[in-house]
Amino acid sequence: MGGTAATPRMRPFLAATPAFAAGSDSPRAFLERCLSVIAEREAEVRAFVVLDIGKARIAADESTQRWRSGRQLSPIDGMPVGIKDIIETIDMPTGMGSPLFEGWRSGRDAASVKALREAGAIILGKTVTTEFAATHPNVTRNPWDLNRTPGGSSSGSAAAVGCGMVSAALGTQVIGSIIRPASFCGCVGFKPTVGAINRGGSHDYLSQSALGVLAADLADAWQVMKEMAKRCGGDPGTAGLDGPAVLPEASRPARLALIRTAGWETASDDARKAFDLACARLAEAGVEFADASDDEAISCVETAINDAQAVSRAINAWELRWPLNTYRDRDFSKLSRAMQERLAQAEAMSQEDYQAAIAKRDRARLLHAALSDRYEAAITLSAPGAAPPGLSSTGDPIFAVPASLLGVPAMSLPLLTVGGLPLGLQLIGFSGRDASLFGAAGWVSGQLS
Amino acid sequence: MGGTAATPRMRPFLAATPAFAAGSDSPRAFLERCLSVIAEREAEVRAFVVLDIGKARIAADESTQRWRSGRQLSPIDGMPVGIKDIIETIDMPTGMGSPLFEGWRSGRDAASVKALREAGAIILGKTVTTEFAATHPNVTRNPWDLNRTPGGSSSGSAAAVGCGMVSAALGTQVIGSIIRPASFCGCVGFKPTVGAINRGGSHDYLSQSALGVLAADLADAWQVMKEMAKRCGGDPGTAGLDGPAVLPEASRPARLALIRTAGWETASDDARKAFDLACARLAEAGVEFADASDDEAISCVETAINDAQAVSRAINAWELRWPLNTYRDRDFSKLSRAMQERLAQAEAMSQEDYQAAIAKRDRARLLHAALSDRYEAAITLSAPGAAPPGLSSTGDPIFAVPASLLGVPAMSLPLLTVGGLPLGLQLIGFSGRDASLFGAAGWVSGQLS
Repeated sequence: MGGTAATPRMRPFLAATPAFAAGSDSPRAFLERCLSVIAEREAEVRAFVVLDIGKARIAADESTQRWRSGRQLSPIDGMPVGIKDIIETIDMPTGMGSPLFEGWRSGRDAASVKALREAGAIILGKTVTTEFAATHPNVTRNPWDLNRTPGGSSSGSAAAVGCGMVSAALGTQVIGSIIRPASFCGCVGFKPTVGAINRGGSHDYLSQSALGVLAADLADAWQVMKEMAKRCGGDPGTAGLDGPAVLPEASRPARLALIRTAGWETASDDARKAFDLACARLAEAGVEFADASDDEAISCVETAINDAQAVSRAINAWELRWPLNTYRDRDFSKLSRAMQERLAQAEAMSQEDYQAAIAKRDRARLLHAALSDRYEAAITLSAPGAAPPGLSSTGDPIFAVPASLLGVPAMSLPLLTVGGLPLGLQLIGFSGRDASLFGAAGWVSGQLS
Repeated sequence: MGGTAATPRMRPFLAATPAFAAGSDSPRAFLERCLSVIAEREAEVRAFVVLDIGKARIAADESTQRWRSGRQLSPIDGMPVGIKDIIETIDMPTGMGSPLFEGWRSGRDAASVKALREAGAIILGKTVTTEFAATHPNVTRNPWDLNRTPGGSSSGSAAAVGCGMVSAALGTQVIGSIIRPASFCGCVGFKPTVGAINRGGSHDYLSQSALGVLAADLADAWQVMKEMAKRCGGDPGTAGLDGPAVLPEASRPARLALIRTAGWETASDDARKAFDLACARLAEAGVEFADASDDEAISCVETAINDAQAVSRAINAWELRWPLNTYRDRDFSKLSRAMQERLAQAEAMSQEDYQAAIAKRDRARLLHAALSDRYEAAITLSAPGAAPPGLSSTGDPIFAVPASLLGVPAMSLPLLTVGGLPLGLQLIGFSGRDASLFGAAGWVSGQLS
């Protein structure tokens, strides 16, 4: 692989594993390929807060032995993964992108991390997050163009996966923190149904937050989610991610709802053109499309999600009142201005204001669920365009926030490009039907790749 | 007040506050009355893990000034409270009743504690809990008889309130951890609708766990809950406790469902007699009663909650897989045998087993909710009898677990006695209707006191 000008390439893991059993490749050799990209690019991309290469090599050797003897712990045994730095790890600090938590150690693994270890995955490092997984940017740069943002808040996870430093990395999304960086960095991003993966030990306890994955391909994304769900379940009280033991089969959706969202007005011409072209190709392949002008039910959804961002921010503010208010007891000046303002917004709210926002969200969810008997999924862009230049903002989450508000699964597929840069095509599914969204995504990817 | 033979007396706070404004009493004098009981009895009762008397006196003096000048922060400004030791406090360790966490400091207040401080309450100390709020007993003894258990898991909270060391103390319940100790120690115990109070920073994240209160009377119980809800809301995504700014007015229920539960077979003759007598008096006062033999819908509920304990324990085991499995990375020998067995149970379960248990719980909840159009509440005992002798068990939670499984509000009222010891009368309400349960409880208390 050449210098920084080379096109970033991802590194799918499951596709490599037949050779592990055969002995022509190994988890250790796979890890070394990841490490060579890290050696070459990490100084400029800055995807990781911390790496533990020595420990990873030992783990990779152990995995190599397991694959050779047919005793691998799971299909992702030996997969190098990154962990978003708001998720606790026993052997590495959890800094949350905030000077308040720099070097903080919880002394335990989060439920998701523990599950990954039980499945044999290799925890290579912690990936950079924006401050408390919100808007204040951090140091990571986009591997496709170092002068552009990688997106946020799962910045490091997307950048690391996008250029093949790891096969997959955990992310979380409450507004647009998986779909947007996946779009900007050109990898698969999957945000599951709210509650699908246990958030114990992950500092993203907001009611519409979900723990998901950024991955090199659909097979890796599904397998990481599935192995976690089997071992740590969903959030307490929820069924957890449901679906087959391996990637659901590709399946052509009969009908897709074209939900343009409030984002459409902000999208670049190139982005719109790329999207329309993709839809045209899917239509040629037999998918029926309907939008707000064809179906009153879609129009109702468009209206209900039009202020998704404002409603989400009000909900998040109230839910962040604690622990933000406890940071006054530490060093309030270490909070970003944006975070201080969020606390001020929270403290100006009443319980009744919050209840009204929740009621609005509930209504949007009902209207959206009503589409499920006619459409397999909705389709839209993942972002208004390619990653914008500059590192002072992580870009506009406007296309990602509807699925967050709705609490439903969403996927960004790296199938579009604008000006030589990646742009995600987004599929939005229905609550609890994460597996069938993967089926549709598999077929769509097959058509457009 | 005399020696240990004296009958324990509780110390209601709201009833004292008119004298604070008038100047004939003060929060500082109130605190000193609490401290004199602590001086007299704490060495034998052992309700507290840690006390901060110096800080409490300073806080009480500040509160005294606020009441004198009419600037009190809330109706509970100056109330001495205890915090169950699974709930985080910035100024005291949070030991969780486990040698694994002895002296552990989180460095922050839980959402509930922060809210209490904002309302002016005085955090006097941390109250003893069983190991991780489960079954393994701790050191607290029953203030009514030191040779008997105070109940668990909110052992210290109930004991401290029961003998007037504090007016109220936070508790949590996932099986029977508020209702049972309240019954044994003779105080009011209130477990709200699941989610009614924000559990952020409280280590009781199980899906049927709820944060509630043990209190000297109904007015104190309601006010503590209300002041918390206003300031920290419910769990993220829930409406939080709803209801009036002060104690809901007493209101005679037209009809009560007599749900005997699986506990009835285990209840002592004295307990049954005391219960039947209480019901007879309420019936004389005009309440209509119905039980499983009168109403098929009640019979369905009785059947659906018959194995409430087994279903709850399966749900809790799966949900405790993490973080219990992370304690292997620390010192597993510091877990009680019961807790080690619980992890073994969890690791023998599949995600499908858990989903089946959740489905069973959902069905019981639906059947119970169907009673809400005919009955204001259900009535039963809080425990099979008075606190049993011995400290090696916290007693049988059999009467408390149905409301936990159902996720609905429940109240133990100190209105019965057996052999000179307290026994709770339990009222069980409907989801989200916590305030009306207080209304019914007020009327019932008025009739039976």
